[in-house]
Amino acid sequence: MKKHNFSAGPCILPQEVLLKASEAVMDFNNEGLSLLEISHRSKPFVDVMEKARSLALELLGLEGKGYKALFLQGGASTQFLMVALNLLEKRAGYLNTGTWSDKAIKEAKIYDDVYEVASSKSAGFNYIPKGYDIPSDYDYFHCTSNNTIFGTQMKAFPKCDIPMVCDMSSDIFSRTLDFTKFDLIYAGAQKNMGPAGTTLVVIKEDILGKVSRKIPSIMDYKQHIDKGSMYNTPPVFAVYTTMLTLEWLKNLGGIKAIEKVNEMKARVMYSEIDLNPLFKGYSVKEDRSNMNATFTLINDNLKDTFETMLKEAGINGINGHRSVGGYRASMYNALPLDSVKALVEVMSELETKA
Amino acid sequence: MKKHNFSAGPCILPQEVLLKASEAVMDFNNEGLSLLEISHRSKPFVDVMEKARSLALELLGLEGKGYKALFLQGGASTQFLMVALNLLEKRAGYLNTGTWSDKAIKEAKIYDDVYEVASSKSAGFNYIPKGYDIPSDYDYFHCTSNNTIFGTQMKAFPKCDIPMVCDMSSDIFSRTLDFTKFDLIYAGAQKNMGPAGTTLVVIKEDILGKVSRKIPSIMDYKQHIDKGSMYNTPPVFAVYTTMLTLEWLKNLGGIKAIEKVNEMKARVMYSEIDLNPLFKGYSVKEDRSNMNATFTLINDNLKDTFETMLKEAGINGINGHRSVGGYRASMYNALPLDSVKALVEVMSELETKA
Ligand SMILES: Cc1ncc(COP(=O)(O)O)c(C=O)c1O
Ligand SMILES: Cc1ncc(COP(=O)(O)O)c(C=O)c1O
Ligand SMILES: [Mg+2]
Ligand SMILES: [Mg+2]
Ligand SMILES: [Mg+2]
Ligand SMILES: [Mg+2]
Repeated sequence: MKKHNFSAGPCILPQEVLLKASEAVMDFNNEGLSLLEISHRSKPFVDVMEKARSLALELLGLEGKGYKALFLQGGASTQFLMVALNLLEKRAGYLNTGTWSDKAIKEAKIYDDVYEVASSKSAGFNYIPKGYDIPSDYDYFHCTSNNTIFGTQMKAFPKCDIPMVCDMSSDIFSRTLDFTKFDLIYAGAQKNMGPAGTTLVVIKEDILGKVSRKIPSIMDYKQHIDKGSMYNTPPVFAVYTTMLTLEWLKNLGGIKAIEKVNEMKARVMYSEIDLNPLFKGYSVKEDRSNMNATFTLINDNLKDTFETMLKEAGINGINGHRSVGGYRASMYNALPLDSVKALVEVMSELETKA
Repeated sequence: MKKHNFSAGPCILPQEVLLKASEAVMDFNNEGLSLLEISHRSKPFVDVMEKARSLALELLGLEGKGYKALFLQGGASTQFLMVALNLLEKRAGYLNTGTWSDKAIKEAKIYDDVYEVASSKSAGFNYIPKGYDIPSDYDYFHCTSNNTIFGTQMKAFPKCDIPMVCDMSSDIFSRTLDFTKFDLIYAGAQKNMGPAGTTLVVIKEDILGKVSRKIPSIMDYKQHIDKGSMYNTPPVFAVYTTMLTLEWLKNLGGIKAIEKVNEMKARVMYSEIDLNPLFKGYSVKEDRSNMNATFTLINDNLKDTFETMLKEAGINGINGHRSVGGYRASMYNALPLDSVKALVEVMSELETKA
């Protein structure tokens, strides 16, 4: 039985992508060699890298607008550091919406002054702060578009006169936005893009070159741009599989098309959470994430019954993050509506039983 | 036709490893989910990570001797930086045997003083310097065991009273050495270990914690050790495939067994280079690499004929690095002796024709 996979990341990928990736491990392009065995400087792989980079910009509507796309190693966690190394000269403003922003702040603080423009910490990060000011003399403003752990999502972005940097790890390519508002976007591949092991960085080139520190080569966006995202050996398999997923998304109709499906999935999920008296949602309604629905069982006695039923229905990966508890249904791009329906069915069946 | 793959890295991997990796992309452990779709915190993947870490120590003979193995992202190039961040307080000594040492030196220099204990630069890096001194008050000594580009290999290592750090990217697991001599070993997976996308770091724990700078979390070996090599999302596929390759090597009889094969391959290869009047080797005999044989055609007029013959024989990836030219036959662990024989046959056939 193919499972319904609600994993928070690494997470479900389109079946056709898995099939092509699996085939390429045995024989890439019918050339008698595995994708894993060929030189990253060979034309077939350089083509893959270039296609992945241009698809990323195309899907975001950023082609020909001064942006460059990179596929780096090190995860989004390395971007916490690279952003500060490349952009932080005196002071930066960070919006704190939970664990990931928190880590980004901590990593940047080593280098210079970091100011929290707002935080929802005292409310357990169950909402997105609004109405804060972003001082126009700061180096940049940093925010996290979707908090994967608490299940909150920024539905609007602040007016920002300084470069805006956004960690979109858990909702990139899931909804239409005016991406030209952002000057640097980064996202680990392992949610909406591909397997763990590569991170997309999209940069407006003109924000670079403004800090006085000497940046280590491997941490320097400029070096990676100059080398066509091949400053050193790229994570070949992760980039290829990401390229396949971006192709899949383009063929589906791009972000606009997937956004409709994602909205539908979220509606079905949250209706059940709200209407079913056995469950309650974790985050405030207006800031709920369309990617990660966080909720709890009101009566803990039902836990074992519920989890047995989930298992029987082939529902996988809905345990909440250890720091929040409860449940988290992650509904990334590749998750079919049918999987959400299957989960919702178990939830309403539990209601009949209880 | 399966090709003879002499690529310098990414490079040939054992066929059975490719098959298992390909299968895991569709269904991992017969659990109805792809390896790419499961949480890195799930027991099946944590087991993979732990197995890869312990196999690495076991094969090197370093189990129970105060070492920890990590599988990180960022390539060996990121280690150039991490070594300096974690170990360089005042001054370090580097042996310069070519491009990769050069880059390691450059990256470390940003942080503190770096001293070249010796260099073979003036001879085009065609030999390994010997007889230099390593001051005992330096923080550490850094060397590159095998220069992938010039085809030189350190056959002996200096007496060293300070921590010895070694970039073994292109010859790890290929020959027996007393690995307890080293305090930090790092190696990108994409030669003898697996696909591009992960880097093995083996550290003697007691050398850490001696620098005064604040190390960014993601660059801090201690953090990665404390989190069991899962400080952030690991490159799941690359780690799994590396684990498979280490298992393959263990089943073969470990480093001792593969060393014999590697010595045989190198003997066959270098005999032909030496005895065939049409070719000459690039590096001095005593420092020749058993992994990367670099050589040139004495008469450039034969280039086209030779390359057509190579193509017809299914020989792939023997172009020299752009900075050296000529040819480079990389003979990593997974390359069969038969592939070397096929190449040598083409070379001697060329002699008959010429
Ligand atoms: C929003 C967000 N940012 C950053 C990260 C960290 O990513 P990585 O583990 O690739 O470093 C995550 C991981 O889940 C995330 O959800
Ligand atoms: C000896 C050596 N060190 C370092 C590197 C750089 O590795 P990476 O591209 O993974 O950063 C290489 C790459 O071929 C190498 O051969
Ligand atoms: Mg702006
Ligand atoms: Mg309810
Ligand atoms: Mg020593
Ligand atoms: Mg000769």
